[in-house]
Amino acid sequence: MTLPIALLEPIVRQALAEDLGAAGDLTTNAIVPADHRSSFDVVARQPGVISGIDVATLAWRLLDPEVQVNVRLGDGASVTPGDVVATVLGPTRALLTGERVALNLLCHLSGVASATAGLVAAVAHTPARITCTRKTTAGLRALEKAAVRAGGGVNHRFGLHDAVLIKDNHIAIAGSLPEAIRRARAGAGHLVAIEFEVDTLDQLDEVLADPDLVASCRAVLLDNMEPETLRQAVGLVGRRLVTEASGRITAQTAPALAEAGVDLISAGWITHSAPVLDLGLDA
Amino acid sequence: MTLPIALLEPIVRQALAEDLGAAGDLTTNAIVPADHRSSFDVVARQPGVISGIDVATLAWRLLDPEVQVNVRLGDGASVTPGDVVATVLGPTRALLTGERVALNLLCHLSGVASATAGLVAAVAHTPARITCTRKTTAGLRALEKAAVRAGGGVNHRFGLHDAVLIKDNHIAIAGSLPEAIRRARAGAGHLVAIEFEVDTLDQLDEVLADPDLVASCRAVLLDNMEPETLRQAVGLVGRRLVTEASGRITAQTAPALAEAGVDLISAGWITHSAPVLDLGLDA
Amino acid sequence: MTLPIALLEPIVRQALAEDLGAAGDLTTNAIVPADHRSSFDVVARQPGVISGIDVATLAWRLLDPEVQVNVRLGDGASVTPGDVVATVLGPTRALLTGERVALNLLCHLSGVASATAGLVAAVAHTPARITCTRKTTAGLRALEKAAVRAGGGVNHRFGLHDAVLIKDNHIAIAGSLPEAIRRARAGAGHLVAIEFEVDTLDQLDEVLADPDLVASCRAVLLDNMEPETLRQAVGLVGRRLVTEASGRITAQTAPALAEAGVDLISAGWITHSAPVLDLGLDA
Amino acid sequence: MTLPIALLEPIVRQALAEDLGAAGDLTTNAIVPADHRSSFDVVARQPGVISGIDVATLAWRLLDPEVQVNVRLGDGASVTPGDVVATVLGPTRALLTGERVALNLLCHLSGVASATAGLVAAVAHTPARITCTRKTTAGLRALEKAAVRAGGGVNHRFGLHDAVLIKDNHIAIAGSLPEAIRRARAGAGHLVAIEFEVDTLDQLDEVLADPDLVASCRAVLLDNMEPETLRQAVGLVGRRLVTEASGRITAQTAPALAEAGVDLISAGWITHSAPVLDLGLDA
Amino acid sequence: MTLPIALLEPIVRQALAEDLGAAGDLTTNAIVPADHRSSFDVVARQPGVISGIDVATLAWRLLDPEVQVNVRLGDGASVTPGDVVATVLGPTRALLTGERVALNLLCHLSGVASATAGLVAAVAHTPARITCTRKTTAGLRALEKAAVRAGGGVNHRFGLHDAVLIKDNHIAIAGSLPEAIRRARAGAGHLVAIEFEVDTLDQLDEVLADPDLVASCRAVLLDNMEPETLRQAVGLVGRRLVTEASGRITAQTAPALAEAGVDLISAGWITHSAPVLDLGLDA
Amino acid sequence: MTLPIALLEPIVRQALAEDLGAAGDLTTNAIVPADHRSSFDVVARQPGVISGIDVATLAWRLLDPEVQVNVRLGDGASVTPGDVVATVLGPTRALLTGERVALNLLCHLSGVASATAGLVAAVAHTPARITCTRKTTAGLRALEKAAVRAGGGVNHRFGLHDAVLIKDNHIAIAGSLPEAIRRARAGAGHLVAIEFEVDTLDQLDEVLADPDLVASCRAVLLDNMEPETLRQAVGLVGRRLVTEASGRITAQTAPALAEAGVDLISAGWITHSAPVLDLGLDA
Repeated sequence: MTLPIALLEPIVRQALAEDLGAAGDLTTNAIVPADHRSSFDVVARQPGVISGIDVATLAWRLLDPEVQVNVRLGDGASVTPGDVVATVLGPTRALLTGERVALNLLCHLSGVASATAGLVAAVAHTPARITCTRKTTAGLRALEKAAVRAGGGVNHRFGLHDAVLIKDNHIAIAGSLPEAIRRARAGAGHLVAIEFEVDTLDQLDEVLADPDLVASCRAVLLDNMEPETLRQAVGLVGRRLVTEASGRITAQTAPALAEAGVDLISAGWITHSAPVLDLGLDA
Repeated sequence: MTLPIALLEPIVRQALAEDLGAAGDLTTNAIVPADHRSSFDVVARQPGVISGIDVATLAWRLLDPEVQVNVRLGDGASVTPGDVVATVLGPTRALLTGERVALNLLCHLSGVASATAGLVAAVAHTPARITCTRKTTAGLRALEKAAVRAGGGVNHRFGLHDAVLIKDNHIAIAGSLPEAIRRARAGAGHLVAIEFEVDTLDQLDEVLADPDLVASCRAVLLDNMEPETLRQAVGLVGRRLVTEASGRITAQTAPALAEAGVDLISAGWITHSAPVLDLGLDA
Repeated sequence: MTLPIALLEPIVRQALAEDLGAAGDLTTNAIVPADHRSSFDVVARQPGVISGIDVATLAWRLLDPEVQVNVRLGDGASVTPGDVVATVLGPTRALLTGERVALNLLCHLSGVASATAGLVAAVAHTPARITCTRKTTAGLRALEKAAVRAGGGVNHRFGLHDAVLIKDNHIAIAGSLPEAIRRARAGAGHLVAIEFEVDTLDQLDEVLADPDLVASCRAVLLDNMEPETLRQAVGLVGRRLVTEASGRITAQTAPALAEAGVDLISAGWITHSAPVLDLGLDA
Repeated sequence: MTLPIALLEPIVRQALAEDLGAAGDLTTNAIVPADHRSSFDVVARQPGVISGIDVATLAWRLLDPEVQVNVRLGDGASVTPGDVVATVLGPTRALLTGERVALNLLCHLSGVASATAGLVAAVAHTPARITCTRKTTAGLRALEKAAVRAGGGVNHRFGLHDAVLIKDNHIAIAGSLPEAIRRARAGAGHLVAIEFEVDTLDQLDEVLADPDLVASCRAVLLDNMEPETLRQAVGLVGRRLVTEASGRITAQTAPALAEAGVDLISAGWITHSAPVLDLGLDA
Repeated sequence: MTLPIALLEPIVRQALAEDLGAAGDLTTNAIVPADHRSSFDVVARQPGVISGIDVATLAWRLLDPEVQVNVRLGDGASVTPGDVVATVLGPTRALLTGERVALNLLCHLSGVASATAGLVAAVAHTPARITCTRKTTAGLRALEKAAVRAGGGVNHRFGLHDAVLIKDNHIAIAGSLPEAIRRARAGAGHLVAIEFEVDTLDQLDEVLADPDLVASCRAVLLDNMEPETLRQAVGLVGRRLVTEASGRITAQTAPALAEAGVDLISAGWITHSAPVLDLGLDA
Repeated sequence: MTLPIALLEPIVRQALAEDLGAAGDLTTNAIVPADHRSSFDVVARQPGVISGIDVATLAWRLLDPEVQVNVRLGDGASVTPGDVVATVLGPTRALLTGERVALNLLCHLSGVASATAGLVAAVAHTPARITCTRKTTAGLRALEKAAVRAGGGVNHRFGLHDAVLIKDNHIAIAGSLPEAIRRARAGAGHLVAIEFEVDTLDQLDEVLADPDLVASCRAVLLDNMEPETLRQAVGLVGRRLVTEASGRITAQTAPALAEAGVDLISAGWITHSAPVLDLGLDA
């Protein structure tokens, strides 16, 4: 993960604080001598893709800088059950105390990466790319966006602040989609890209009919369209805009959408509902 | 949710900060007039159990204290598709800008509550209760623990700091389970409860054979036992300890474990891998 | 200012902390009775444009919520010497204690707005717009960007995170400008706009010669060009890209650049070196 | 700069956070290989005085501790165009990503130091010293106070909490200047110095006539007086108090004021309106 | 207490966080219905002086803004056993949950105020005043300084940053006391007061012999002197400096020191070792 | 102290910030050359027990990582006057600037440890152990709990969140002690231990008469009982519950209570009113 450590630290500190409270690890402190040292392997128990190894490393090292984490399979690596992702060694107390915080983050982020990788594989026979949404976990957006990249996906906007995405409520208030686009273009800086969402080909025509509107925008989100409709939409757009398909995307539905020619397929569940990737600590 | 607002605020502020950055909601600010007001319903699109309505409320009200949120189905309420969970009204900009942060938290926490409720229902014919683990999302433990309660479950320990749970690594270092228990009892305060994990009846016997050890402990975690073995373990314990079963718990496997007589069944996935409950905003 | 209060509060709290320390306002607390109440006017002593009235208001109201600030000339308003921008009334201690923090922010941000407005006026006879840079004051970027908008300017990117701007160092490392653009387009998400900087028409030609490169980008920064060269550059681009001129922009040099046909003129000094707008508190 | 790093870090972290957001440096990460290393010189493009080199160093090193900054001309050093202030070397990504944050702080603080040095030079033929005010940039007071010292000036009080300065509003509320001084002396601790502001010789006489009042105070601020009046005031005081002149101080007006015999000349603009010192990064 | 709420809030929030953790008040939440309301009196169980009622109020009101605190005997009030300091009423859960945090702060700060008041009373027949030191509790300095004022004392410097106090180690490094004073006067701003510590009359003479040194300083700390020596020292100083006595000050030793004519008597124990004032909550 | 550094750092940073403000150590910076180095001993001036040496170390090392602290007598060590607890060496400025913050924490925490040790010694002829309460200093609970352990005591609960303690107000609201226990047992998780407070043997009988109630609880707090009554209470309990005595505990009263057979004796004053242990810095 190429995130600056200054961004990771507050997240890991908060996770450690949740687990340690003011009393610390009662079990380990009572049972394990302070000078006991160990080595454990972080082992995959499921196939998937790794993300978050830097964050896990930080969890152990913030507890005790003497802990060493030797990473064998870093972010973006594919694993099969039994693969050793990393070896952690050092004072046993820190290793055991940090285990759950490290694994909670690593398993969650690897889960996001693996879910992404699953969709990426499903459309690998097409040029379509998999992207994410703003449906992320509170406090973890930067990490989950990085996990999507680790899984082979590309990032959609990071928030409300770095791009315009015009949806039905905005259109209703503006009165029409063209008017919404005009307001957005007038209000946003020149480096702010605009995407708009349509459900029907008629809506799409409203924009495509006006070259100024098309030039104002960067992408169109084709929401919940059947593959055949999607194919028509892509044809109408004719590469003047980036095309993105969305709506109940799974590894089963994605191929047909990708084959319809869209540039991007976005799925919210890869960040909000991906199950963890099962990884454990073996002595 | 009965959590003090001082605990919720930093989480919601961080989530808002992620989404708003320094530029704010470019789309809404460009398109929606500042004095436009609206009313939206938060509507369930799936059956499930609600948790997190206080957090969602806070997301909107931290953006603009003029927003009103009228809750109809609060934490712990069961919903069916179409149910209106709450009505939010006020300045449209705040409503649209806060939508995703509010729903991200509400859908995630309701997902945890719903997953919990599913297991609770599966063992409702027995006295067994469903509990959670420390496999929670970094930064959201307090909220997810509350979501487990909303779903009808009970909370396990909140962290390493409020109870002792002796696991295989601790036993290996102590040399034996009895020795680990003795060290824990000697080291922990009198209000710190001790639970220990066993995989086999033999391990369990080591403790049960010594009344002092039994008196030192509050609970035993019977990990990955078949229902029949579990039943024997419960019989051996004879109500001297709280019994907890764990290991690959699903709505399918839980009934047989509950019928074996355990007091508690714990599942990690209800916090770490529960899919969101689908809730949306309708005009 | 349309910034959410959650973004403004930490800045104002920090400024108050700097001034108050742990002992508070020694002078006012010793001299002014606690129940003394006053009313003061915030008065312009120079012509200019206002920005930051919300922040100034917050400075007083965080000290004492009883303070009322009645704004007469809000963000974006033009003022002449003697104009009353706002009337503040309430407990005198809070009014005097908060005066400097409030005015420091208000005068600085109004200085940025006024500097922007000066350039905006200088090019008002053309379609060119004035924009800012990332040369902002540490900790105040969001406020200074808002001040630029209050002065009639438009915002450039907010940071390294919301758009690509390819400069000479990037080009040197990539080997060529086309290669740098290709890497940027491949690495950045579909809603990330790309701008590149050129000093010469030859560099510009490298991009314009390749329609794929042009389609990958949104804007070109024409740095330190003479008006005549700039006019040629604008002609070569032919509205395929947004054109931005930069380099030693003043109210004297801006008109000729604007008349050369560029869309945007960017100036760093309006945020990093604008003198304050003189505003004071009159009883 | 002799400020403890614990004071500098939050300022630099906040500045980095503003620039990096959650996505980081999109341009550099896409174009520059992770293992690319470079060396750049921080070069003066204007004559002036340096301040803030520690803060700039921190900006790069918080991004990557592998960055080395070899300082050649530290805080307080005078520079001429072309002078190399420091050489930075290490991973290119960190060098480019940190450039703007480092230079924004360094150029601003060096601007403050240079403005101060300009006034210091203007009065160098007299014993008068140049001092600053509380008209500083929100969040940067400690750094700007240090920059004033780097420029050869001395610091006035750091805030409302470390000295008493009695101004017109306090006098009006107290009823008279002597009464204001009495209240301040009674209310403030024995190590809190008192300064009072006067506009006329008559006001000054009110204090000088009473030796107890004089003994209570440390300094008098002679505001907006003509040089000749100032000279009379200094004569009346007769070294019983530190004398400070203020009001529209420039390199042109300062000499006459200094020659009138005051101990200190204070100027707000050296912190609130000093233009940046132009420094850049050369490969 | 006249401290701004922005300074009190972080202290109280931290204290609440320590007590509530993520699980909250397990006892009260399990036993007390959410809609139960009560009224309690904060009652003195010992004679003493109150300080900290604002902080206690905040503890309850941050838990639930519905709590009302009606203060009858505010900061600085003397109490006898049975006196009702305040009545708190509102939701019982908040009242019970906040009780310990509120009382911990109130009892501690009232303990400081009461200890101060004891010394103040012991020297009331003289003009001497009681002052404090920097020997305060980590994190609570501002509150303890306010408690000293509530007890009738005056504050010494608030930290290393707001005044100079020259002690033996500084003298040793400078080579002599006069040299240390000269360095301090040259290095510190004009509103920074200087105090120096002496143990003997000879040391004192070194300064008094030089009028420039005397004029540079504001106060002398006469450490651990017998009353008779102290009287001589005060006589030698002759009101040219504020005189402060220190060293093992108690209500028994203070009168003789005060009668020796010093202006101030400082005691560290009133902040670092004052026992709490016993206050409790009565239904 | 076995506390993770991440927990100690914010406390020490806050204490340094209180002392240093924005101007730093005016005295030391003016008098001591930047390159001056020294060595000092931390010396006990009273007999007692040490706690907090890690925190003191951190105070110096956060100022300057070049400072070295060689600990000779760590947490839990007994000292007599003249004992050298640690030697600190490095840049003199950091040593002098950090002295008070380091000693304030070290002396306070050693005071708590010493007070605890005094009570521990008083009951050393019995199996009774000394424990603490929640009557701690705001912000320092974790450190004071560790100091109690250093003094030979054991920790009571850390807050409202990690155990149930039923007191008179809870009983009054529940209607009876048995009902309060039932509600607590039903509401709290299985690893939450329950203790209840009684003043009389009759109250105790209410619980002991019902084996289910006894099994629900872990401990009983016998408040303010005379030794003879306490002995009877212990006899009635018969080791079915942990017994704790409280109420005006001193080294004089503790032995008789311990001899009555209780397991624990708790005292609030060891954290809230323990005088500091006098430790100083010798050159």
